[in-house]
Amino acid sequence: MSLMIENVLIPVEDGYATVNVQVKDGKIAAIAPQIDAIATKLLLPGFFNAHTHSSEMWQRGIMSILPLELWLAELYDFAPLDTEQVYLSALGTAVETLLSGGTSVVDHLVLIPGQELETIATAVRAYREVGIRAFIAPLIQDESITASIPSGESTQTHEPYFRSTAATLEIIEEAVRQFHRPEEGVNILVAPTGIQLCSDALFTGCIELSNRYNLCRHAHLLETKAQEKLAQEKYGCTAVEHLKRIGFLGDRTTLAHCVWLNDADIAILAQTQSTVVHNPLSNLRLGSGIAPILKYRQAGVNVTFGCDGASSNDSQDLLEAIKIGAILHNVTDSDYQHWITPRQAVEMASLGGATGLNLADKLGSLTVGKQADLILYDLTNLSLLPRTDPIGLLVLGRPTNVVDSAWVNGKQIIANGKITTIDVDNLRQELFNRSQWETTRKSQTVAQIEAHYRQVMGL
Amino acid sequence: MSLMIENVLIPVEDGYATVNVQVKDGKIAAIAPQIDAIATKLLLPGFFNAHTHSSEMWQRGIMSILPLELWLAELYDFAPLDTEQVYLSALGTAVETLLSGGTSVVDHLVLIPGQELETIATAVRAYREVGIRAFIAPLIQDESITASIPSGESTQTHEPYFRSTAATLEIIEEAVRQFHRPEEGVNILVAPTGIQLCSDALFTGCIELSNRYNLCRHAHLLETKAQEKLAQEKYGCTAVEHLKRIGFLGDRTTLAHCVWLNDADIAILAQTQSTVVHNPLSNLRLGSGIAPILKYRQAGVNVTFGCDGASSNDSQDLLEAIKIGAILHNVTDSDYQHWITPRQAVEMASLGGATGLNLADKLGSLTVGKQADLILYDLTNLSLLPRTDPIGLLVLGRPTNVVDSAWVNGKQIIANGKITTIDVDNLRQELFNRSQWETTRKSQTVAQIEAHYRQVMGL
Repeated sequence: MSLMIENVLIPVEDGYATVNVQVKDGKIAAIAPQIDAIATKLLLPGFFNAHTHSSEMWQRGIMSILPLELWLAELYDFAPLDTEQVYLSALGTAVETLLSGGTSVVDHLVLIPGQELETIATAVRAYREVGIRAFIAPLIQDESITASIPSGESTQTHEPYFRSTAATLEIIEEAVRQFHRPEEGVNILVAPTGIQLCSDALFTGCIELSNRYNLCRHAHLLETKAQEKLAQEKYGCTAVEHLKRIGFLGDRTTLAHCVWLNDADIAILAQTQSTVVHNPLSNLRLGSGIAPILKYRQAGVNVTFGCDGASSNDSQDLLEAIKIGAILHNVTDSDYQHWITPRQAVEMASLGGATGLNLADKLGSLTVGKQADLILYDLTNLSLLPRTDPIGLLVLGRPTNVVDSAWVNGKQIIANGKITTIDVDNLRQELFNRSQWETTRKSQTVAQIEAHYRQVMGL
Repeated sequence: MSLMIENVLIPVEDGYATVNVQVKDGKIAAIAPQIDAIATKLLLPGFFNAHTHSSEMWQRGIMSILPLELWLAELYDFAPLDTEQVYLSALGTAVETLLSGGTSVVDHLVLIPGQELETIATAVRAYREVGIRAFIAPLIQDESITASIPSGESTQTHEPYFRSTAATLEIIEEAVRQFHRPEEGVNILVAPTGIQLCSDALFTGCIELSNRYNLCRHAHLLETKAQEKLAQEKYGCTAVEHLKRIGFLGDRTTLAHCVWLNDADIAILAQTQSTVVHNPLSNLRLGSGIAPILKYRQAGVNVTFGCDGASSNDSQDLLEAIKIGAILHNVTDSDYQHWITPRQAVEMASLGGATGLNLADKLGSLTVGKQADLILYDLTNLSLLPRTDPIGLLVLGRPTNVVDSAWVNGKQIIANGKITTIDVDNLRQELFNRSQWETTRKSQTVAQIEAHYRQVMGL
């Protein structure tokens, strides 16, 4: 199978070139210059939505304005999901990601208790139907939610988690056997939620699976100040030092957030070649802080972007995450020579994502021989006019309806601005029918834990 | 003239009500409950894009990643505007503002030297054609650009400004005579650019015109740390203390940015009932800092939002400015009880804007008797699904193509998602034809002043 993408701008070292791109057997086969043509479209490698939780879409817009620990309690009070919801929100996440330049999604997937494999199967089905490249990271833990809040001076006891560590690991291994098909664009990752809710036994079991099946690793890391405190209580050292000691870090490990790391921690990430997934919008919404992204870049740590789940963002628009993730850090360092340029942001979102998933040789740039995960942007859209620097407009503007076409593994899944693989109007109708206007809700768990949280955090 | 907006959700104290809204002679004439209807649209008062510079649209996407003082030097090196450009970018600014929920725009309008009144006339024409409510604030100064950088230890001399203070004030007075027609939706403001480039004589002349003609006042205020230093050099006190002393502050004064104010300055803004216009996106892009918006709110200072000019944002999407302007501050105060809720953000964007322009009795809320500046949002758009809290979705999500209808002064100017007053496809074509793909440019002025800037700022 072969196709030609004709007369498009691509970025080259000193500006842009107008080219024809030939795609053959799912790969970029040739890039040939076009002379004297006026291009009106820009071709870029597909971006990675490198951290999200698809089913959070069901609660976007309604979550209270709270910090992570309390927000999470509210989220789980109101998240009795069924597999049909998982299916629809995975479709929605895929569609919004694609329409904002993403061709890959890392879904840190919330599992329905007792239906864990069905949940994973459902997400796999949705992503296969849309055609987006999927990295499904089933979210696992083996401690109960109150354990994620530092105890402070008090002695806290927590309910045991409802499922054993061994049973959880068995579910993941079975998911790998059934669904891990990298050559078909479906990948399973080992993905303990993070140090705040996982035992060392769970981390170690994940490492073992990762080594045995060659799986990427994914986790949240130090999203909040509370987690920084908790790590000291739990390990007597930083979370990064602990994760290094137990062997979780490495060149196929992506770590979401990384807001509360010190300089020694940053050096460890660089040394272990771990990747930071920056989720600027949820970090702001939850008041988690500003991740020290410029420091990561100076230390040589690979950084890419995620939308995070739609309950903490509340969209899955990757271009929005890239814009804010690029400009947010200008207020953290007065030397503008360190600030992220639009071209650097594009590279972080594409090659940075591929690098974190150990696929930099196959994805993330317009290179002959790489897989054809491509996005074509329409540069005649009002939001990208007047004409100046296409990548500057794309990253720093607010592009709206600008994705003309998308290909994953050489297969076209957006044409003329429309998803071709599923019926998006039907999806909208289903989402509408299965929901209702809501206003205020009251979370029982928040009411129970808020006083303790405020005390421990000195509020 | 009368019209009925039927079966729409509006926010009420304890949630939402479904209502019919009657508009008569440009005003909200009645709001009547609708029983048992399933509404799919949300009606809100139009927002205010309370600070922008329309002609900056010509350089969006291309401006280097620099702090304000150097960025401004680059901007002016490449901004030889003509009135046709002013016309097209005013149209573009109006369209993007309307399609993101704004029905009013405050255009701190850059004047073409020697064609000042023609520039203003052109912007007036563009805004009248689109039908947006226009607050044109001709940007004036009487000092040359190098005066905006603190001198530090060195003695700096600056070129005199090309036009006298008196001549500048005469232009503004003439503009008021020719174009200030509040009842027709066109307002002229006095708008010295700020303390960094204006003499006391210019400020005083503006105050005098403001009093004589009942004009609102607008200026930049303490956008950067450099301006904070400059104020101390220039006045021996803070810029706010100085502006208070000369009488520029008051209940019809809107001040863009307000990033570098101390607690005493904040108390002065509250006492004088001045309004802060928060431009979160340009503050991030230019690395200016995070304005202390939560402190303003706690002190009782009125705050509203602006996109700022498209060379420092680089879009005119008001919903984006509202989202980031709401969530950005969660990282500045760990007590989430101070954080801005979506409903508060909507009030800041609507009533907050009206208050700053001394029009809170006429605009900014869904109140019988107020002018009908209204936006109707389509809640069946994918970006606002599934259904939860409509205002939460609108403010915290990334709404795309959600404006179904807009009315200004009761006149409909968007219907079925399309601007009805001008030909937007033609506008796109004009913007395309009058521009070209660019990549790197070199600003001569930046090259000249950069070393001095780095030295003064300790870089």
